[in-house]
Amino acid sequence: MRFTKMQGIGNDYVYVNCFQEPFPRDPAELAKQVSDRHFGVGSDGLILICPSNQGADAWMRMFNADGSESEMCGNGLRCVAKYVHDHGIKKSPQLRLQTGNGILTVDLEVKNGKAERVRVNMGKPILEAEKIPTKLVGSPPVNVTLEANGRQFEVTAVSMGNPHCVIFVPAATDELVLGFGRHIETSPLFPKRVNVEFVEVLSRGEVRQRTWERGSGETLACGTGASAVCVAGVLSGRTDRRIVNHLLGGDLELEWNEQDGCVYKTGPAVEVFSGDWPE
Amino acid sequence: MRFTKMQGIGNDYVYVNCFQEPFPRDPAELAKQVSDRHFGVGSDGLILICPSNQGADAWMRMFNADGSESEMCGNGLRCVAKYVHDHGIKKSPQLRLQTGNGILTVDLEVKNGKAERVRVNMGKPILEAEKIPTKLVGSPPVNVTLEANGRQFEVTAVSMGNPHCVIFVPAATDELVLGFGRHIETSPLFPKRVNVEFVEVLSRGEVRQRTWERGSGETLACGTGASAVCVAGVLSGRTDRRIVNHLLGGDLELEWNEQDGCVYKTGPAVEVFSGDWPE
Repeated sequence: MRFTKMQGIGNDYVYVNCFQEPFPRDPAELAKQVSDRHFGVGSDGLILICPSNQGADAWMRMFNADGSESEMCGNGLRCVAKYVHDHGIKKSPQLRLQTGNGILTVDLEVKNGKAERVRVNMGKPILEAEKIPTKLVGSPPVNVTLEANGRQFEVTAVSMGNPHCVIFVPAATDELVLGFGRHIETSPLFPKRVNVEFVEVLSRGEVRQRTWERGSGETLACGTGASAVCVAGVLSGRTDRRIVNHLLGGDLELEWNEQDGCVYKTGPAVEVFSGDWPE
Repeated sequence: MRFTKMQGIGNDYVYVNCFQEPFPRDPAELAKQVSDRHFGVGSDGLILICPSNQGADAWMRMFNADGSESEMCGNGLRCVAKYVHDHGIKKSPQLRLQTGNGILTVDLEVKNGKAERVRVNMGKPILEAEKIPTKLVGSPPVNVTLEANGRQFEVTAVSMGNPHCVIFVPAATDELVLGFGRHIETSPLFPKRVNVEFVEVLSRGEVRQRTWERGSGETLACGTGASAVCVAGVLSGRTDRRIVNHLLGGDLELEWNEQDGCVYKTGPAVEVFSGDWPE
C-alpha cells in the first residue's frame, strides 16, 4: 500500500490515496499499526482520501492512533487539500471536501504548481450544549466550573464538528496538560469524550495553545482545537475575532467572521515523504 | 533517496543502502531531519549501509537523532545484518560487518529466505577506565558511587565499543530514567558522555532494563546497553553469565562467554517499511 506522510504544523498523519489504493479492510486496525512511532510509520493517525459519495472533490476519512474514527481535523483537512491538488485528483485553487462534519470549502495559495498554505472555512461553531455534546451548565457553557481529578477548572466548551473544552490558564504547563488532559477528556460531562485546549492569552490578538487530543494524547497541534480557541476567546471576552495562535508545531491564523458566523483558518501543509507499507 | 525503516525490539532507525544510493553530503544534518518524529520519517537515528574499506561484507555508519556519530548499536547491527542478507548484498548465514568498534561477526537464523533472528558477537567488553572512558574510581569501576543532580547512585561502568553506566535499582521508574538520565549522560566523569541503563534484577538469569541513550534520550531498547548490563551483572555479582533481558521494546538473550570472553546477543530484526525521502 502506497502512502504519504504529511504534516500541518507538526500534526502528522499517514495519508492513503483511495482513488488509487483499495479501501483498507480494517482501517481502525491499520491506523493503530501505522501510527506506532517505533513499530509502524509513526503518526497521529491515518487519513484516507476517498471518492466522495456526496459530490465533493474528495472524502476525508480519519482514524486516530488508537483506531477510533474522528469527524474531522483541521490540520488534516489542509493536508488533504494539498494532496488532492498537488497529486492532480482535482487541480483547482478552491476545493470542496467531504468530512464527518459535512462538506467544507478550502482555498489554496499555490506556488510553482504546489499548494503552500491553505485557508479553510471551518464552518460555524456548534454552541448548543446538547449538540457539543456536554452536560456542563450553559448553552454554550462559558467560563463555567469543571472538576477533574480533584481540581477545579474554568472552562468554555464548543464544538467545531468535534467537541472541545477550552481552558484559559496563566501557563500551559506539563503538569496541567499531561496531568489532567486525560481526566478531562474522559469526564462524564462529555458523553463523546472531548479534546482539551490549555491556552495562554498573550494579547487580544495572540494566544499560545497546548492540545490534548481525544484518543491521541498531547499533539503538536490541532486545527479544530485552534478554531475552538478562537471562538471561546470571543465568547469569554478574552480575545478579538482575529488571532494568531502559536501551537507547539507552528502558527495558525484564525478569524471568527462576524458576517457569516464561520471560522476561517489559514496555515501551512507539508508533504514529508512517501513510502510503501507491506500488506 | 530510497530508505528502509527497520527496528530491533523497538530501537528503530532509518537505513540507507549506500551500495545503491550516493553517500549523503551531510549525514549529521540528514540524521536530524529524518529522525524527527513529526517533521521527518521518525527514528532513533540514521544508519548508512556502505561498502567496507576493510574487506568486510558491509560498513555500518551510524548517526544519532541529534546528528552525533556513534561507534555502534547492537540492535542496529542486527538490522544491518538482515538488510545485507535479505536485499542480496551478501546472501550468507554468516556475515562480517565493519563498525566503529571494528569488524563484528554475526550469525543469521534464516526462514523462507529471510533473516528472522540474529546472533551477534558483540566482542569483548572494554574494562579499563581510561578506555571506557570514565574518571570513576576502579578499572573497571564496579559498585562505585556517582553523584548526579544532587543524588547518589551505585554504578558499574563498562564499554561495549561505546560507554555505558549501569545502575541496578529496585524499580526503574520515570523519576529515575527521565529525571536523572540526562544528568548522568553529561556528567564530567564521562568525557565522551555515556549511555545509562537502569536495571531491575528479577533473578540471577533475568533482568528488566530501561535505557537512556546518549544523544537520543530514552529509547525502547539498546543492544550494546543490554550487553553492558550482562557484563555489569557478572562483575557486580548480581547475575549469571547467561540472562534474558526484558527491554521496553522486547526481549534479548545475552551471554558473556567464559571461554572467549566475548558477549553474544540474540534477538529479532524487523523491516517495517520502505520509502522515498525528498532530496
